[in-house]
Amino acid sequence: MIIVMAPGASEQNIQAVVARIRAAGLKENLSRGTERTLIGAIGDERALDPSLFERMADVERAMRVVKEYQMVARETQPDSSLVSIRGSVFGGAQIQVIGGPSAVENAPQIMAAAQAVEAGGGHLLHGAAFKQRDNPYSFQGLGIEGLELLRQAGAQYGLPLISELTDVRQIEAMLEYDIDAIAIGARNMANSDLLKEVGRINKPVILKRGAAATLAEWLMAGEYIATGGNHNIIFCECGIRSFEPGYPHFLDISAIVALKQETHLPVIVEPAYACGHAWMVPALSCAALAAGADGLLLDVHPSPAEALCHAERALTAAQFQMLMPRLRAVAQALGRSL
Amino acid sequence: MIIVMAPGASEQNIQAVVARIRAAGLKENLSRGTERTLIGAIGDERALDPSLFERMADVERAMRVVKEYQMVARETQPDSSLVSIRGSVFGGAQIQVIGGPSAVENAPQIMAAAQAVEAGGGHLLHGAAFKQRDNPYSFQGLGIEGLELLRQAGAQYGLPLISELTDVRQIEAMLEYDIDAIAIGARNMANSDLLKEVGRINKPVILKRGAAATLAEWLMAGEYIATGGNHNIIFCECGIRSFEPGYPHFLDISAIVALKQETHLPVIVEPAYACGHAWMVPALSCAALAAGADGLLLDVHPSPAEALCHAERALTAAQFQMLMPRLRAVAQALGRSL
Amino acid sequence: MIIVMAPGASEQNIQAVVARIRAAGLKENLSRGTERTLIGAIGDERALDPSLFERMADVERAMRVVKEYQMVARETQPDSSLVSIRGSVFGGAQIQVIGGPSAVENAPQIMAAAQAVEAGGGHLLHGAAFKQRDNPYSFQGLGIEGLELLRQAGAQYGLPLISELTDVRQIEAMLEYDIDAIAIGARNMANSDLLKEVGRINKPVILKRGAAATLAEWLMAGEYIATGGNHNIIFCECGIRSFEPGYPHFLDISAIVALKQETHLPVIVEPAYACGHAWMVPALSCAALAAGADGLLLDVHPSPAEALCHAERALTAAQFQMLMPRLRAVAQALGRSL
Amino acid sequence: MIIVMAPGASEQNIQAVVARIRAAGLKENLSRGTERTLIGAIGDERALDPSLFERMADVERAMRVVKEYQMVARETQPDSSLVSIRGSVFGGAQIQVIGGPSAVENAPQIMAAAQAVEAGGGHLLHGAAFKQRDNPYSFQGLGIEGLELLRQAGAQYGLPLISELTDVRQIEAMLEYDIDAIAIGARNMANSDLLKEVGRINKPVILKRGAAATLAEWLMAGEYIATGGNHNIIFCECGIRSFEPGYPHFLDISAIVALKQETHLPVIVEPAYACGHAWMVPALSCAALAAGADGLLLDVHPSPAEALCHAERALTAAQFQMLMPRLRAVAQALGRSL
Repeated sequence: MIIVMAPGASEQNIQAVVARIRAAGLKENLSRGTERTLIGAIGDERALDPSLFERMADVERAMRVVKEYQMVARETQPDSSLVSIRGSVFGGAQIQVIGGPSAVENAPQIMAAAQAVEAGGGHLLHGAAFKQRDNPYSFQGLGIEGLELLRQAGAQYGLPLISELTDVRQIEAMLEYDIDAIAIGARNMANSDLLKEVGRINKPVILKRGAAATLAEWLMAGEYIATGGNHNIIFCECGIRSFEPGYPHFLDISAIVALKQETHLPVIVEPAYACGHAWMVPALSCAALAAGADGLLLDVHPSPAEALCHAERALTAAQFQMLMPRLRAVAQALGRSL
Repeated sequence: MIIVMAPGASEQNIQAVVARIRAAGLKENLSRGTERTLIGAIGDERALDPSLFERMADVERAMRVVKEYQMVARETQPDSSLVSIRGSVFGGAQIQVIGGPSAVENAPQIMAAAQAVEAGGGHLLHGAAFKQRDNPYSFQGLGIEGLELLRQAGAQYGLPLISELTDVRQIEAMLEYDIDAIAIGARNMANSDLLKEVGRINKPVILKRGAAATLAEWLMAGEYIATGGNHNIIFCECGIRSFEPGYPHFLDISAIVALKQETHLPVIVEPAYACGHAWMVPALSCAALAAGADGLLLDVHPSPAEALCHAERALTAAQFQMLMPRLRAVAQALGRSL
Repeated sequence: MIIVMAPGASEQNIQAVVARIRAAGLKENLSRGTERTLIGAIGDERALDPSLFERMADVERAMRVVKEYQMVARETQPDSSLVSIRGSVFGGAQIQVIGGPSAVENAPQIMAAAQAVEAGGGHLLHGAAFKQRDNPYSFQGLGIEGLELLRQAGAQYGLPLISELTDVRQIEAMLEYDIDAIAIGARNMANSDLLKEVGRINKPVILKRGAAATLAEWLMAGEYIATGGNHNIIFCECGIRSFEPGYPHFLDISAIVALKQETHLPVIVEPAYACGHAWMVPALSCAALAAGADGLLLDVHPSPAEALCHAERALTAAQFQMLMPRLRAVAQALGRSL
Repeated sequence: MIIVMAPGASEQNIQAVVARIRAAGLKENLSRGTERTLIGAIGDERALDPSLFERMADVERAMRVVKEYQMVARETQPDSSLVSIRGSVFGGAQIQVIGGPSAVENAPQIMAAAQAVEAGGGHLLHGAAFKQRDNPYSFQGLGIEGLELLRQAGAQYGLPLISELTDVRQIEAMLEYDIDAIAIGARNMANSDLLKEVGRINKPVILKRGAAATLAEWLMAGEYIATGGNHNIIFCECGIRSFEPGYPHFLDISAIVALKQETHLPVIVEPAYACGHAWMVPALSCAALAAGADGLLLDVHPSPAEALCHAERALTAAQFQMLMPRLRAVAQALGRSL
């Protein structure tokens, strides 16, 4: 940590900072500049919080030098980690495509969606049984019944299953219906109680980014899961709050590039959540792969105009089928497969 | 709802929209303009989702005219609602000041904080027993023990109690320790599972704004609580994500003004969460009252430089005591009391 | 335009709105709903400003239905426009790559940069002679001398030239040194005095997006140029203000997709301005092409570590040379050439 | 400046950084930590650009310690500066209120506006003759004629005059019509060519904040003016880009507090530009004063519903007259006068 003293800081206040550094078991390095004195804290700075120093007299600023996340950091583990969801491996040369409806609505709908995903060459099936919506009068998901229908559709078409966890009380059902991977939605990215629980179970976790989260906050959310013992984490970029009326979120394409550098874990992208329009999804999917994403999470619905949630976002079976060869061409251009 | 057809929309596609409006039990009004045809849906448009129309052929856009929230809307109930937390009434002429530490750390700390709040003229005491932090290595709160210590401090100084609920499993403890009002943090504003639960209990709720939430999203979060039967809701502005390195959140002062217009429920402000620096809190507290806030939530800590969380934000007892007369002067200038 | 009356609007106030619509030479369409009356204004609504209605009694909201931009709109001209900069055609199947240093620094630097661009297969050369910097103590460009050096380098390597215009007083020099296309920087996107001037000259314009601009505002800036008579406009996405400490701007990849839909004019991308780090540029360049961009504007500098501005952003000659085949592969995967 | 070396940085690369620091005439301080080596550059770091170091091998990050702005910094001049616009002094105990229409439209309009400002107790008159608008089809101001009308209105009611400068070619007219202070709009905050010119003239400058500007960028814009020799600068907060549909900009109330700490120059607020609605202006004006603003810039129009620009923002004469006593009460509560 570096503590920047204010210009004209008194010797007494400088020594108080030094004393506090020593009290935490670290050593100090003083650099007396022409305008300011800098004090470096040498040792494991994770034991210190910059804000403690910022309350001390004559301290202008305190900054961390070392990153707060460790287990998820590429600095800790330089080689990329592979995360497997029932045999579909994320983080290697192969791009993984997850398809399915925003919500499981009924048996024919999820069956038709699963068929579309399988026929189009998708690798995994998702469908939420538990939905968190902005509007209390909107469809909130089928609950347990949705898990059962999802499981049947996955079994029928041989697809690994992903579903969203919105509350700790649903974990048991997720295990009972043998959902293969758990998705944590953007709203719950910073819900550390939930993160701690999924850190304790033996299922891969797809961790979506909160709409106002910095990369460090997102990585720290992953660190919560990792500290629980679950290292099978896939980060999913799905956009940050937009001021552009044309789309609800900005897809932060740079986040893919930066995250692949910062973490050894896989990074995927959910374009439809960001852009909010099915017609924008194909171009953004190609862009996500070109930026280095390890996979995509796509809304696929047999009949979007009848969808109970996010009708405007879902690809039809035909649109999904047309998109896949285009994605494959981009993947191959970059030396990857799909 | 208004459906805007694309230029040159075919008669067949216009009639398809009309048919869908009628199928939902509403009537249509067609306005054939020089460039575009507009179709109004007359009746209870809450039964319709604009996104369903946006997937139909030749539809350019569909827009709601009626607001999605009802119970929390001033349109529904023009008179301001009063919400009482064990006798402290929010929403009337009297400004309410809530003080206390970000987290309950130990018995002497919360006792000293309660004493400072009471001595300074604060009206209610808050202190979190359950903390959600960005960093898994940071202090996460004392848990149940924190509620017990908070209760003792409140009893000692005769202050109503507020504490944060971060997980549905803590509700029982909140009831057992008789916490007077429940705070929902910014991270959980859109956690509808949690909102539904607090909608079912008989405690006032302080609902903080998510860092990327629009006012409509925030009001809808309140609507979740109201639809459960709990109408004792206080909205708390605490800032939105900032791009300015000097402070983590922008305090959205306009939100106070707009919200007082949109909802009949009280609106308070937590300046320290937004600005992140104790030295900025006094000026922002005055500004919040001047903008029309019904109360303030202030971090007060007996020894901020030793605080286990957010040391940089808390007022000392002396700072709190100096601030209160200034707030009183502003309140009186505006015809309110404190 | 649609005027939404407040619930319970008086007949008199409704008629006042109708009278105003008629006074502007339009016709009205009344739709009396269960909660609100809607009034459509039929005719050329560009003659009306919604804000005028919003000041009238009992008016809740007024909304445009027709877009404010016309000349740049694809709605006006469905076929894509081609814009040629001395033979390099933007907007067709061919991807155009512009390379060069952020600023012209001296003769050897711009010569070496031009050589790198030409050798790597870039199509056009840029280099600013006039720089607008955040810091008054930073290098502000060579001025006229920079244009002369740029011209020499372009002539030597047979590359069309692009340079930034920051002030109306520089237009004459741009014409004198025969710069082939003029760039308008993000800071000047909304500088309508400057836009009007470049609308009057006979040079293609590369119009960068302001860091806080919506797409409509950006398109309107283009409309300023078009209304002056200059229709050779290329939009350049270069990012919007970021709250992520890791990069100064979010590259708004969705803007490429949305803009290609909204305008018939070409859209290119400047990734380095957005991300601020040379190491992120290759992946973002690929993503921009995959999203549908018609070209790229890349910082290429013979010796970035000695650069007088934005050292952290520039590709070396070797990095540029390595990137080009990768871009070509992506372009070809999408059925385009480079 | 602090240069943070990557973990495991080689001695050779550390020495290269040291050599570069020495080459710039500064001294180094090495702090070899357990994970990283930090190198402090001691001396006038303004001679160095962090980005130069970030391109060197094994350098992870380089950070300034000293601020880039000097002349406008309170660190340089601890006492608050007073800026007088023809006798109206900004920055002291007295709050200054500037009123007037967004644009000068015709003689009766600006006369009536001036009368309203004077009658209500406002201190200065503003009115733009040159307008930069989003839409090329919108009213663009009367130009020179507007300055003449403004001057007549100011003379009639004895009010100092403020008008906006949007282009360097208008400076002569500003001097000729003896406008007392020049406003630089939010769009031009970073237009350094314009800033340099107003730095050379002998008129106070009201410098509005760009919609995406950080405080440091804004202060640097002021530094541009100051380095030209003009130290009569007043900063005007007018909001940053908003994602909330209800208002175009967030009024950054914290910026007032932070800026008063960072600079010795006065800070005022223009609430209507931020919130976009006249009905929100009174509450935001009170809040601005309570936060510590030295003055207000208010839209006052004799007949807003007929205004040629921003009809929705302007106060009527009556609304202005009602607001002033409320503002006075808030000012007095804070120990200031109005």
